[in-house]
Amino acid sequence: MQLTRRDFAKMGALGLAAQWAPQLIGQATGNRKVGYCVIGLGRIAKHFLDGARDSEHSKVTALVSGHRDKAERIAAEYGVPLENIYSYEEFDRISKNPAIDAVYVALPNSMHAEYTIRAAKAGKHVLCEKPMAISTAECVQMIDACKAAKVKLMIAYRLHFEPTTLKALDIVRSGKIGQIQSMQGANGFNIAVGEWRYNKKLAGGGSLFDMGVYCVNAYRMFAGAEPLGILGEVSTSDKSDERFKEVEENVSWVMRFPSGALATGASTYGADMPGFYRLNGSKGWLQMDNYGYAGQRLQGHYRGLEPGTPGVSFDETSQEKDPMQFVRQADHFSECILLNRTPQAPGEEGLADMRVIEAIYKSGASQKA
Amino acid sequence: MQLTRRDFAKMGALGLAAQWAPQLIGQATGNRKVGYCVIGLGRIAKHFLDGARDSEHSKVTALVSGHRDKAERIAAEYGVPLENIYSYEEFDRISKNPAIDAVYVALPNSMHAEYTIRAAKAGKHVLCEKPMAISTAECVQMIDACKAAKVKLMIAYRLHFEPTTLKALDIVRSGKIGQIQSMQGANGFNIAVGEWRYNKKLAGGGSLFDMGVYCVNAYRMFAGAEPLGILGEVSTSDKSDERFKEVEENVSWVMRFPSGALATGASTYGADMPGFYRLNGSKGWLQMDNYGYAGQRLQGHYRGLEPGTPGVSFDETSQEKDPMQFVRQADHFSECILLNRTPQAPGEEGLADMRVIEAIYKSGASQKA
Repeated sequence: MQLTRRDFAKMGALGLAAQWAPQLIGQATGNRKVGYCVIGLGRIAKHFLDGARDSEHSKVTALVSGHRDKAERIAAEYGVPLENIYSYEEFDRISKNPAIDAVYVALPNSMHAEYTIRAAKAGKHVLCEKPMAISTAECVQMIDACKAAKVKLMIAYRLHFEPTTLKALDIVRSGKIGQIQSMQGANGFNIAVGEWRYNKKLAGGGSLFDMGVYCVNAYRMFAGAEPLGILGEVSTSDKSDERFKEVEENVSWVMRFPSGALATGASTYGADMPGFYRLNGSKGWLQMDNYGYAGQRLQGHYRGLEPGTPGVSFDETSQEKDPMQFVRQADHFSECILLNRTPQAPGEEGLADMRVIEAIYKSGASQKA
Repeated sequence: MQLTRRDFAKMGALGLAAQWAPQLIGQATGNRKVGYCVIGLGRIAKHFLDGARDSEHSKVTALVSGHRDKAERIAAEYGVPLENIYSYEEFDRISKNPAIDAVYVALPNSMHAEYTIRAAKAGKHVLCEKPMAISTAECVQMIDACKAAKVKLMIAYRLHFEPTTLKALDIVRSGKIGQIQSMQGANGFNIAVGEWRYNKKLAGGGSLFDMGVYCVNAYRMFAGAEPLGILGEVSTSDKSDERFKEVEENVSWVMRFPSGALATGASTYGADMPGFYRLNGSKGWLQMDNYGYAGQRLQGHYRGLEPGTPGVSFDETSQEKDPMQFVRQADHFSECILLNRTPQAPGEEGLADMRVIEAIYKSGASQKA
């Protein structure tokens, strides 16, 4: 069986391509791998490098770094040609490198917009880390730049490709827990002294940008809608703490969805806060623990489908290991590029989360005034 | 050793009386039991009757009900003299009955104020179910009436006497989880058709009054302070649902405490929502599951006291059975009466929660306008 791009487009419209893709992509593409240029070689980039190494359709072919030594070490480790190492000053020259199909933006938040737009202008597809940028205005510019350049843009929401989260979404969409009325969650940690993430110029904001965004994204995904009302509080307990001179320590918020479902979220940079969300439906509930790179746990209960039939309880922890989330994420974006499909989490998804984040900060500021 | 009331007052001030009480009360009181008149014979009253039966210093000596048959059946079951059964019309005659020291108000919320005030005027101490009443104005009247009559007033916050909750409080106060930055929680259920609790005239409000109040009370207890800022959203997903014609289905809110700690809470009458709270501190976290009559679970982790020492993880489920919460609660109030001490959860505690509830509703209403 030979399948054309047109066949895949039809299958995509029917929602079938995702399941069929692993077997079929090879036939459609001659097993071509998408070449990625990784921009920024911090912690998250290492996970992506591991993920691409283990993937079917993705390969890191170039690196961008301000530290040549570090880049050469990583290039050697992952088989990246030395001639494909760029400094930030040389970045725009990637346009001339046919080994680079796409870039993976793993820079501090405030640099996401600039490098996404420059990559688009260089004719490269963009996989950008979350949060998408530091303002909705930047998000719009990024979307526009990628559209103008006819390149694809995806935000690296790993959990959209994580089996436990997909199972939770399947349970919700199947109606097994009924109509969602309430969602709760939190995500945060006690940030170490010296991190760039509490430098406002680099990070754009504090714990909400970095950690709370996971809850915001999850609530929007499960509600399948955009919130109508958003309220928030922003606080720092110790103003003399050097970590919180520029960004907030704690954020908590409420989101109201058109269905009547309400969601509460919390983030912190000043406390131990294992990430979770809970969903409460008219027929059951579920809880996911751990927004991390592996080890997602899903617990819950829903009623029997017929009155009098027994309910179903579940408590499962994913056995997938890091970097599988990055493997799936990279291959999804690669498939979108190879088969000309729209990514699961396009720029519009990052923009929608940024709208919520801005509304929370705005509400928080007005509460203090 | 003979101990006088003055000795007990001193011990109370030192926080010692609570631990010593079981052995010493007998000596101080000649093993006298406090006689309770139970007002309202619904589900919660049955738990209290079981609790008083199993207690050391409490005894149900009278019943008030609109259903003589039901009252006689319960009187027979619990050894209450038939001559101590009152109708609501006869209620004020309890003033003449020396077998009654205190009343336990287990009526619908909107009747708490009236019967608390009438009991106070009859010279009886009052243990009143939560929520204390349906407005702060009523709470103030109840406190004033009990003060004027020189009787004690306690709100039946069971969990103040539940070992798992007390352990959580001990962990927080010891500083083991550091400074609390964030708290999350929820409590609710899918209410059955026919319940009085969605009749606004009887209930005063919906899920927040009945279920969310547990979270409000817990947050205030753990913060050890009153909130400075309160925001909320109130919603009903299906306005044609007969259960939500008068009271709300869902409430979610944020509370900001003077320390900078933020709390989010949620309640519902339209979804399966197992109760919980999570506390996030600078050195650890804990989670309590289950606001019910038994089976409280406490999980968490805190760091080693010295750098480099191992952290401590815990996951314990209380083996106490119902009605032990009611046993402890009744005996605590009885001890306060016998030894002239201030209850753990006096009227001011119920008033403080009601202030928060009113502020949440007010914020919710303003969000909708």
